[in-house]
Amino acid sequence: MTRWRLVLEYDGGAFAGWQRQETAPSVQAALEEAVTAFSGECVLVQAAGRTDSGVHATGQVAHLDLARETTADTLRNAVNFHLKPQPVAILEARPAAPGFHARFSAIGRRYLYRILNRRSLPVLDRGRVWWVPQPLDAEAMQAGAQRLLGRHDFTSFRATACQAASPVKTLDRLEVMRVGDEIRIEAAARSFLHHQVRNLVGSLKLVGLGRWTPEDVTRVLEARDRRLAGATAPPEGLYLTAVVYPDEAGGS
Amino acid sequence: MTRWRLVLEYDGGAFAGWQRQETAPSVQAALEEAVTAFSGECVLVQAAGRTDSGVHATGQVAHLDLARETTADTLRNAVNFHLKPQPVAILEARPAAPGFHARFSAIGRRYLYRILNRRSLPVLDRGRVWWVPQPLDAEAMQAGAQRLLGRHDFTSFRATACQAASPVKTLDRLEVMRVGDEIRIEAAARSFLHHQVRNLVGSLKLVGLGRWTPEDVTRVLEARDRRLAGATAPPEGLYLTAVVYPDEAGGS
Repeated sequence: MTRWRLVLEYDGGAFAGWQRQETAPSVQAALEEAVTAFSGECVLVQAAGRTDSGVHATGQVAHLDLARETTADTLRNAVNFHLKPQPVAILEARPAAPGFHARFSAIGRRYLYRILNRRSLPVLDRGRVWWVPQPLDAEAMQAGAQRLLGRHDFTSFRATACQAASPVKTLDRLEVMRVGDEIRIEAAARSFLHHQVRNLVGSLKLVGLGRWTPEDVTRVLEARDRRLAGATAPPEGLYLTAVVYPDEAGGS
Repeated sequence: MTRWRLVLEYDGGAFAGWQRQETAPSVQAALEEAVTAFSGECVLVQAAGRTDSGVHATGQVAHLDLARETTADTLRNAVNFHLKPQPVAILEARPAAPGFHARFSAIGRRYLYRILNRRSLPVLDRGRVWWVPQPLDAEAMQAGAQRLLGRHDFTSFRATACQAASPVKTLDRLEVMRVGDEIRIEAAARSFLHHQVRNLVGSLKLVGLGRWTPEDVTRVLEARDRRLAGATAPPEGLYLTAVVYPDEAGGS
């Protein structure tokens, strides 16, 4: 039995999220069925982050155990063949240490949130960005974002359905930058609360519109009240870009 | 009567090219019908470049004449509304000088060609890139590209259906760069022959694979024989990114 570690890309818009469900397509079910078509084995594929419906990934990490002996290239190519035409692919496969667990071994997650900030609706990036036609002040958003760094009780930015034991998380990076018509927000932490990135983005948008000052971000954070924060930003702008493990100093 | 100048974005995969046709959807027809829905006028929309089927645009320029008085913002927003859900949008509308002609006033065109160069097939960029799974040497491609700059008879890289009076063109820029898994090729000239960019890219791919040396590019260019050059690269990697006019020193 070999434990394999996979790096995955997928278009979240085609799935009702990572996790296998009875009645809706999931990334997990697509992968498990493609692996079974290749190996004849019933497998469980476990991911570092169970992304929500509509959320994309360019660097999701997952693991699975296979009895069939194969090479990394064969596993990747064969499973990608069986995944077609579904919009999910293995970018990289490699053998992992027996104790490796995609979720529990991870020591960092990185997300990207993309806002298309122009008057005309998205065309080539339809389904890949959050369209905000009103002008956003990216510098003010960046000033607000810096107030969220560090260890805090993020109750104000936590989904009511969140099952985490504690609302306290350490946000290592939250960087807002404008690139042409696009505002890119990069977030990094050991782990995130449910909807945390989308809730942070929803509030930073209010700063960008001028409806909040950067100081309001601190006020809402300290109030620990979900009702005071901005609305949850839509899933189509969010990408899980990388998962970090202890054996990789520079990240994955 | 006001002459309007439009900057357009579209997903070429949804259209059989720019030009209006009897039996297939075209960008021109989509725009003309949306303008008519807004203004009640029958209009002719003329573009700087009549892109082929499948070719995208992020900076196509077109013009039209309207009797109805309106503002640039209203024209853009109303036509974009009537274009929905087709993947084409006006990014910018502005009044043009009466003699302005999107095609004949242009003094430069810029294209981007995107190659996804990795073993796994495209997922989020499906339909937006040419997938080449074999490793490409971008530096060799760049060396080959530099041999094509300047004024030449480009018969070797010209579509047989090309209607240009002369095969002589001046290529001002052809820059190959690797950005992660992607190879980006930027081309600029006053004008191009039919399929010229895609034919140049098809030959540069042979250099990237090591099947041609950079010197072979010069040999094929000088032979003036289409049969010696590489196959035409597919349309889905090509983007018309900008059209330049004399009133804009820095380009559009």
